[in-house]
Amino acid sequence: MSYAAVLGYGTVGSGTVEFFRKNKAAIEKRAGQPFNIKYVLDTRDLRGTEAESLAVTDFSVIENDPEVTVVAEVIGGATFAYDFAKRAIKAGKSLITSNKELVATKGAELLKLANENGVHFSFEASVGGGIPVIRPIKQCLSTDVLQSVSGILNGTTNYILTRMENDSITFQQALKQAQDLGYAERDPSADVLGHDTCRKICILASLAFGRQVYPESVSTAGIDKITLDDIRQADKDGYKIKLLGAAKRVEDGVSVITAPFLVPKSNQLANVGDVFNAVLLEGESTGDVMFYGRGAGKMPTASAVASDMVNAVKTNADRSAPLPWVDSGSQAFVKPWQSGTSGNILTLE
Amino acid sequence: MSYAAVLGYGTVGSGTVEFFRKNKAAIEKRAGQPFNIKYVLDTRDLRGTEAESLAVTDFSVIENDPEVTVVAEVIGGATFAYDFAKRAIKAGKSLITSNKELVATKGAELLKLANENGVHFSFEASVGGGIPVIRPIKQCLSTDVLQSVSGILNGTTNYILTRMENDSITFQQALKQAQDLGYAERDPSADVLGHDTCRKICILASLAFGRQVYPESVSTAGIDKITLDDIRQADKDGYKIKLLGAAKRVEDGVSVITAPFLVPKSNQLANVGDVFNAVLLEGESTGDVMFYGRGAGKMPTASAVASDMVNAVKTNADRSAPLPWVDSGSQAFVKPWQSGTSGNILTLE
Repeated sequence: MSYAAVLGYGTVGSGTVEFFRKNKAAIEKRAGQPFNIKYVLDTRDLRGTEAESLAVTDFSVIENDPEVTVVAEVIGGATFAYDFAKRAIKAGKSLITSNKELVATKGAELLKLANENGVHFSFEASVGGGIPVIRPIKQCLSTDVLQSVSGILNGTTNYILTRMENDSITFQQALKQAQDLGYAERDPSADVLGHDTCRKICILASLAFGRQVYPESVSTAGIDKITLDDIRQADKDGYKIKLLGAAKRVEDGVSVITAPFLVPKSNQLANVGDVFNAVLLEGESTGDVMFYGRGAGKMPTASAVASDMVNAVKTNADRSAPLPWVDSGSQAFVKPWQSGTSGNILTLE
Repeated sequence: MSYAAVLGYGTVGSGTVEFFRKNKAAIEKRAGQPFNIKYVLDTRDLRGTEAESLAVTDFSVIENDPEVTVVAEVIGGATFAYDFAKRAIKAGKSLITSNKELVATKGAELLKLANENGVHFSFEASVGGGIPVIRPIKQCLSTDVLQSVSGILNGTTNYILTRMENDSITFQQALKQAQDLGYAERDPSADVLGHDTCRKICILASLAFGRQVYPESVSTAGIDKITLDDIRQADKDGYKIKLLGAAKRVEDGVSVITAPFLVPKSNQLANVGDVFNAVLLEGESTGDVMFYGRGAGKMPTASAVASDMVNAVKTNADRSAPLPWVDSGSQAFVKPWQSGTSGNILTLE
C-alpha cells in the first residue's frame, strides 16, 4: 500500500485526482499494490469538490506523514513550489512535478537533492503535457549521442499562428479568439513573449546535453511582432512560421534559442497545427525522431503526472539510472545561435 | 562488468557491434559498469570483419557461459531464432530482439518464460526501428486506457506510395526504384503484400490491449493493387493513400487490420512520407500521441537494440513491471474491422 499527496488543486491537480479515481484498476495493476491519494493541499476551500475529504492547508501534515511516499507538486511558480519540493525530498518522498518554471530554474539542484536522498524526481508533465518525451529521451536515446532537440512547445502560440494563417486574421484577432476559447490567459505574455517555450527548451536541452541550461542565458523572442504579411510571405517562399525552442550541440558548448522560425513545409514541424505540440530529436545513430500530441490540457497533463507517480512506487523502479544532468555546478556554456535569417525571423535548416 | 552475445551478424548485428564500439562511454555510463560484447554468433565466416575475434558458430558456447547475461537475437525468422531465444532465457539470460516475426508469433510465450526465469525480454527494435515506441507505450501510457493504435509501419511501402504520388509513376516503376536504392528486397512480397506491417501491428495491439494478437487472425492486404488512378482520385478527394496497420478496442475484443487506407490530409499520418514510419496512439486521457522517425536502417535499429541491452544490465532495472501481455493462454478475440469504404480502400475515420 502506498500513499501520495497532491500539492495544488487547480486544473492539473483536480485532473490528477480525477485520473486516480477513473483509472484505479490500471494504476494499481501497474504499481503492483494499492496506491491512493491521501492529501490534497490547497489554500482554497475544497468543500464540494472531489478532494473535500483529502484537503489540508498545512504542508507539514504531509511532510511529517511517513505513509506518504510520493508528492506531486502542481502548484506552479518557483516560490512555494520550490520550498515544498525541497522539504518533500528531504523528508524522503519522491517528487513529481508538472512545473516547468521549477524544473527549468531548479532542476539540477533538485535532481542532486533527490539522488542524495534516494528518491525519484520526475517531471514528464513539465514539457509536452501528455506526450511522453522526457522518459524517451532519458531511456531510449540515452545510449545515443543527441545532436539537437527542438520543438513547438507552446500550444497557445501555435494556435494563434495557425488561426492567423488559416483565417487570414491579425495577431490581435487570433489572440482574442484564443482567449475567448480559454487557450490563452487574460495576461498572455508568458505564452506570446516566448517565456513558456524558453523554460521548456531549457529543460529539454539540459536533459539532452547533460548540463543545466538556465532560462536567463537563452535569447528569447515571442510571436507578438509577427504580422499577417510575414505569414503570407513565408507561405509564398515555402515556409510556415512557428515559434520554436531549439537547442543544438556546438563546439565547446550548446546553442539554445527561443524564436519564431521559418520552417520548411517539408519539415514535420510545419504540419503541427492548432494547440498541438511536437518535439524533434536528432540522434547521431537514431536520426530524426519526433513526438507529437496535446501539449497541455487537464487530462493529458494529469495522465503524465499520474504515470510518474506510479513509476515512483513500483518495486524495483528505475531510480538508479545515472541521469547525466545531476550536478548543479555544471552549468552549460550557451553560445549564440548561428542560423540563416530572413528579416527578423530565423530559418530552420 | 557485464557481457553480451549477439546472434546474427547481418545488417542489425553488425550495426550493434559498431554501435557498442562508437558509443562505449555513453553505454557504460548508462549501464553503470563496463559492458562488452563477448560473442557474435553467425554461421558465416567473420574473418576480416569487426566481429572476427568474437565469432562463434555454436550457440551452446554462449548458452553455457555464465558471464553472458544478455543475448541480442537479430537473426530474424522464427526457427533458429525461436530455439535460441528459449534456450537463452532458460539459461537465465535476458533476451533482446529486433525480430518482429518472433515477437508477433511467440511474444506471449517468451514473455511468460522470461518472467518465470527472472530475466528481461525486450523488443523495442521490432517495431519502428529507432523510434522509441514500445517503451513509451509500456511505461508512459500504461496508466491510461488505450483506445486505438495505428501506424505506417513499413518504410518500403511508404516509399513506394510516396514516389507514385510525387513522381506520377506506377507501382511497378516505384517498386523498381525502391529495389535499385536498396529499400526493397529482390523478393519484396513480405513488404508489399502487408505481412511485415501485419506482424508489427500485432505486436503493438498485443501490447496496447494486453492479449496476444496473432498475425493469422488479422485480415491483411498490401499495396500491390494500388494504381496511380487510385492515388489521383484520393488526392482530389482530400486523402492520401497509406498502408496502415490499425487496431482498436471494440466491444468484447479488439479489431485489427492491415490494409491501404484513405487518410485525410489533415491527419498527421498523411504527412509521413518516404521511408519514414509513424505510430499513432489514442489514449482515453492522453488524447492522440504520435511517434515519428526512421522505421528501419542499420544504425537506428542497432541503437534501439543497444538501448534495450543496456537497460537489461542496469542495477535495479525495471523488470518487475507487470506487463499486461504475459499469458500465452489469453489470445485476443479479433473482430472484423468496421469502417467506411471507398471502393477497395478503407477510410481512416
